[in-house]
Amino acid sequence: MSSPRSGQPVLLTCGAQTTTLNSPETRAPSPSPPHLATAIDRERERERELNSRAMARSGKERRDQEEEEAAVESVERVFEGRVVPGWKEQVTLRALAVSALLGAMFSVIVMKLNLTTGIIPSLNVSAGLLGFFLLTSWTKLLDKAGVASVRPFTRQENTVVQTCVVACSGIAFSGGFGSYIFAMSDRISDQSGEARDEHNIKNPSLGWMIGFLFIVSFLGLFSVVPLRKIMIIDYKLIYPSGTATAHLINSFHTPQGAKLAKMQVKMLGKFFVMSFSWGFFQWFYTGGDGCGFMSFPTLGLEAYRNKFFFDFSATYVGVGMICPYLVNISVLLGGVMSWGIMWPLIEHKKGDWYPADLKPSSLRGIVGYRVFISISLILGDGLYNFLKVMTRTTTALVMQVRAMMSEPTLPVSGGGGQTPEETFDDKRRTELFLKDQIPNWLALSAYVVIAVVSIATVPRIFHQLRWYHVAVSYVVAPVLAFCNAYGCGLTDWSLATTYGKLAIFTVGAWADASDGGIIAGLAACGVMIGIVSTASDLTQDFKTGYMTLASPRSMFVSQVIGTAMGCVIAPSVFWLFYKAFHDIGIPGSEYPSPNALVYRNMAILGVQGLGSLPKHCLDLCIGFFVAAIAVNLARDLAAPKVARFLPLPMAMAIPFYLGPYFGIDMCIGSLIRFVWDRLDGARAKAFAPPVASGLICGDGIWTLPQSVLALAGVKPPICMKFLSRTTNIKVDAFIAKLPSS
Amino acid sequence: MSSPRSGQPVLLTCGAQTTTLNSPETRAPSPSPPHLATAIDRERERERELNSRAMARSGKERRDQEEEEAAVESVERVFEGRVVPGWKEQVTLRALAVSALLGAMFSVIVMKLNLTTGIIPSLNVSAGLLGFFLLTSWTKLLDKAGVASVRPFTRQENTVVQTCVVACSGIAFSGGFGSYIFAMSDRISDQSGEARDEHNIKNPSLGWMIGFLFIVSFLGLFSVVPLRKIMIIDYKLIYPSGTATAHLINSFHTPQGAKLAKMQVKMLGKFFVMSFSWGFFQWFYTGGDGCGFMSFPTLGLEAYRNKFFFDFSATYVGVGMICPYLVNISVLLGGVMSWGIMWPLIEHKKGDWYPADLKPSSLRGIVGYRVFISISLILGDGLYNFLKVMTRTTTALVMQVRAMMSEPTLPVSGGGGQTPEETFDDKRRTELFLKDQIPNWLALSAYVVIAVVSIATVPRIFHQLRWYHVAVSYVVAPVLAFCNAYGCGLTDWSLATTYGKLAIFTVGAWADASDGGIIAGLAACGVMIGIVSTASDLTQDFKTGYMTLASPRSMFVSQVIGTAMGCVIAPSVFWLFYKAFHDIGIPGSEYPSPNALVYRNMAILGVQGLGSLPKHCLDLCIGFFVAAIAVNLARDLAAPKVARFLPLPMAMAIPFYLGPYFGIDMCIGSLIRFVWDRLDGARAKAFAPPVASGLICGDGIWTLPQSVLALAGVKPPICMKFLSRTTNIKVDAFIAKLPSS
Repeated sequence: MSSPRSGQPVLLTCGAQTTTLNSPETRAPSPSPPHLATAIDRERERERELNSRAMARSGKERRDQEEEEAAVESVERVFEGRVVPGWKEQVTLRALAVSALLGAMFSVIVMKLNLTTGIIPSLNVSAGLLGFFLLTSWTKLLDKAGVASVRPFTRQENTVVQTCVVACSGIAFSGGFGSYIFAMSDRISDQSGEARDEHNIKNPSLGWMIGFLFIVSFLGLFSVVPLRKIMIIDYKLIYPSGTATAHLINSFHTPQGAKLAKMQVKMLGKFFVMSFSWGFFQWFYTGGDGCGFMSFPTLGLEAYRNKFFFDFSATYVGVGMICPYLVNISVLLGGVMSWGIMWPLIEHKKGDWYPADLKPSSLRGIVGYRVFISISLILGDGLYNFLKVMTRTTTALVMQVRAMMSEPTLPVSGGGGQTPEETFDDKRRTELFLKDQIPNWLALSAYVVIAVVSIATVPRIFHQLRWYHVAVSYVVAPVLAFCNAYGCGLTDWSLATTYGKLAIFTVGAWADASDGGIIAGLAACGVMIGIVSTASDLTQDFKTGYMTLASPRSMFVSQVIGTAMGCVIAPSVFWLFYKAFHDIGIPGSEYPSPNALVYRNMAILGVQGLGSLPKHCLDLCIGFFVAAIAVNLARDLAAPKVARFLPLPMAMAIPFYLGPYFGIDMCIGSLIRFVWDRLDGARAKAFAPPVASGLICGDGIWTLPQSVLALAGVKPPICMKFLSRTTNIKVDAFIAKLPSS
Repeated sequence: MSSPRSGQPVLLTCGAQTTTLNSPETRAPSPSPPHLATAIDRERERERELNSRAMARSGKERRDQEEEEAAVESVERVFEGRVVPGWKEQVTLRALAVSALLGAMFSVIVMKLNLTTGIIPSLNVSAGLLGFFLLTSWTKLLDKAGVASVRPFTRQENTVVQTCVVACSGIAFSGGFGSYIFAMSDRISDQSGEARDEHNIKNPSLGWMIGFLFIVSFLGLFSVVPLRKIMIIDYKLIYPSGTATAHLINSFHTPQGAKLAKMQVKMLGKFFVMSFSWGFFQWFYTGGDGCGFMSFPTLGLEAYRNKFFFDFSATYVGVGMICPYLVNISVLLGGVMSWGIMWPLIEHKKGDWYPADLKPSSLRGIVGYRVFISISLILGDGLYNFLKVMTRTTTALVMQVRAMMSEPTLPVSGGGGQTPEETFDDKRRTELFLKDQIPNWLALSAYVVIAVVSIATVPRIFHQLRWYHVAVSYVVAPVLAFCNAYGCGLTDWSLATTYGKLAIFTVGAWADASDGGIIAGLAACGVMIGIVSTASDLTQDFKTGYMTLASPRSMFVSQVIGTAMGCVIAPSVFWLFYKAFHDIGIPGSEYPSPNALVYRNMAILGVQGLGSLPKHCLDLCIGFFVAAIAVNLARDLAAPKVARFLPLPMAMAIPFYLGPYFGIDMCIGSLIRFVWDRLDGARAKAFAPPVASGLICGDGIWTLPQSVLALAGVKPPICMKFLSRTTNIKVDAFIAKLPSS
């Protein structure tokens, strides 16, 4: 029915459903929000693919699968006695309150990750867990307080919370605060080495950011509404993340599931407190530049100078624990290749390959090599995967259409092979999914209205962008949104940022450089990412709602509310960071925001071409671009046994610019996970995601009081400083002479 | 049969024997070497006492006791099949080699503890464990290597190793390197505030220290030989540490016991490696004064100035894990009372109570209060316990003699009540214990010969000491040695240091101050401690040997060899420290050696009287002296429920001088132990001692390479420095101006 390549997701289906409801398996895969599409998601998918291939081979597993099919069939039977509330009862006030709380919390975390390295792991599991925990506590508390007639907490309500939180925190990513929006600022412009041009600068400001997000973020929602039934019911697409999340929520609401969930929440809470306290403790010793544990030369001063050190970050240890081993190893490998070998070698050529008298941050010097080589790796990887997904998408689409034309009444499952007869679950789910409709005419007219408003207003925000740039975007966008939603349903990975990069180059080249082409390109990137990423999000959520019997209407409403929340919360959180930490975007600081510079340089590249790079930089870039494609090709063509040892170019690219320190954190997380897996695999599977989430969330949330302290002008009292012995002798002599020491 | 007070040790007997061979109980009490008599031993005894009282009440426990009596009865039945090797086969070359290795290792650890705080926990368990581990590995290795006829490793051999190691590392304590010997040096003299007098100074030097130890340390051994049968067979004294050690060794050599032992050794090894690595890691960051984790102002700079901080010492966390809670809490309480309340208050009186223009280390200033108040606490506690043990000893002795006179053929068990019929174990043990005799005439003539040599030579080492001082000591010493051995058998605590202090005051006053009375007092203290502490050691070991069927002759020989090793190793280790770390004995350094100053000031007090103390210091001293006695009295008179909350004055005294930082370490150790006990009491009991030993040993052994590095002139490369924010700004400006930074 489908080509061998697009057939793999079928196995993926099995992989996603091979588990009984209460086994830790269900919760382990830690589904990733599709709009946070990075190398992580792809690698996770690949691991699942390999796993399910292996599974298909094993007889025992096949038996499990059969048993499980019975279990899957019984999901809705288990829940049969429970009344499904109407869609208005699903979107309760308490659900929205909890969503707002969690949405804000996750926005802070995502923002922090955006501005430190740009590597963002899946927080869906945490969102599901904490949503469940907060709402059960809420209802229990009210119940104990004797409040009469507390409405019971349903899985539909849980789905609404999950959807709303993901929509809200998704804006923190797709809003581009770590990438295209911040790339417009003068701070990043100064680093990019271009001649300063006020026309190509737009500094962040709370007002226009909120306005821009409101105009841009809702279009994706409406563009996908008409496709909803096709994707979920007719095509029966998988949406692995959405499916896994639905399993998670379903299992929480069966009695035994709740028990494990409570243990997981407890674990998450414990590590949350530890991580938060650790962040707090560290704070006291950061009373100056280069002070504190972040600057701990764990591997010696020489290694520290080349950014090899463990920086005691609970966040990235947690990230390492839930990222696949290959991602962590790739990051470290990239770090070793670049900061361990290449940069020291290139620095030896100082004065030959590039002038010796540049200021250290100049792109015409060593930093140029770092930035452009990492861009070429990212572009090479992106291009390859774009082509791959497009091919796969088109092939599968053609198959679908052909199958539907031959058997118009019987929908074909997402890639063939599966039993065509409907199970009880399917029937019940389809019935409820089709009950609450969102009229197509409403969606269409909403799209048109918002598009018109947007075409009129976006050029007023970015006067470098013409109205026809925006209009063309809105004509092309639905097609791309459809592609992305479909591809995401197949492979669980969203190409939103790749479409965004496409927009940078096309619109950037279309507008003129002297006419503010850089800003135009970046703004177009924002418009495109906004539509494309929310479209795939919404379809994922529809799948979750389908499987938890949540009404499509309540899903849609909660998505709209979540997006609206995100449009206010995300820029506010960014603003908080921006005002509280004055070194955001400065290389070597706590928040270097590496992607911002990468995006700006892509825009410059699109507008100005490849001149002005330092010597041999272009050759190296081409080399790495080709290498990225070659490695990807090798990964796809090689036997799985070999392929799993080939690194991910995208993951390697990030430390090329930032340095390997966070790769060391991540590998420590990996090591912990590895040892834990060996010692007690079952517990590790069930509890590693909560532990990692606790580490990430605790450290992330600590940023909130930290920035409040910074805004209030409270500075840490102590500086933990690291000096070489010889410097220390001089410093000691100096301190002895100070009067008040 | 005995007074209620001396009757308690009977219950103690039960407590020590209530456990079956393989229960973790047997290993948990971590018996303390009697010559390391500190507050720890006493508190441990008190806890055991309370436990056994509680046990005697519980019916279940009584049943266990009965079952266990059968088990105890069967110990020698279990071993019946095994041949007991002759005494020459027990003292094998391999046992001596392992003993030398472990003896050196423990000497380093004890020396480090001596020179840091003077609090030394029991290392017997580690010695037993590691001896077992090394010798089984040895035999297995040789067996695998195909060496024919490897002699099997017996429990007698294990006892020999244990005895030899304890004897060897005991010298590191009784040699007084942290107390009386180092107190003679000019470095301590300079701190004591006395007018410098070359006549009252004797600096350490390898030659005379080894000579002195050889002359002094063997006398105790011979003095106790005639009393051996009386103590073990006739009086059936308990020697709780010796008994526990014997249980440990017996259990190692039964098959199941060895399994647990191996797990314990593994645990010990794991934490040894961790602790060693941590020490190594810390070293890199100590490239200057006040650098590194030891100077980490964990609780803030203000608290750090008052010595409230966690100094990341694995050693004292380990010590806290095996010390009773009350000891740890007492230490912390003492720290809070002194450094948290009293010293800051007294410092407010600067210029009034004491001159403001003194140098910071002067004893006429704040340091005087610290030193003399802690001495009065120690003396008050010591005096009370001396009187208490003497009363108890005399009463029990009178009872024994009276009982023996009425029933001369039947020996009475140590305090009555117990069944007079001999068990199988008793018979077999007595039989073997009486087989290999050491002739009394030999012991006596050896004592006389060594005493004569000593009387002739000691005054040549310390010309301030007259021959008649030494001669009188050797007449009095056997009586005191007997008292100490007997008291130790009853209560498991040795009063060696108290007898030593007695010698300081009497001989110090006898000799004249102008005639070097300080050195004379300190030297007499050494003579007394040497005899008294080895005497109680040897009797403990005889008890262990009795219970493991080791020949008294082999025990004696291994003691002699161990003592000889110690006489060479201990001074050498001290010499290594002394040469490698140039700030030994300097307050505030890594090795402040607090007891050295305390001992010297006691000697000065004995010789010169109480003049020249700062204002109100004498009043405070008297107050604390009385308080120490009162608290001890209250502890003995109050109900056990109340008594267990009363602190130990001796433990409180140490932080009075040093500061509370190591008390914080110890309380963290306590906390870990407490939580572990709650979570999994059985595992905690079995594994806390190995974990703690691992922490202590790893950190202790790291000192060895550390001092080698220091001697080789290799200095740590980095200084981890802690500056206040304001100082840091100035320092940063200064560093920016440095040329090569």
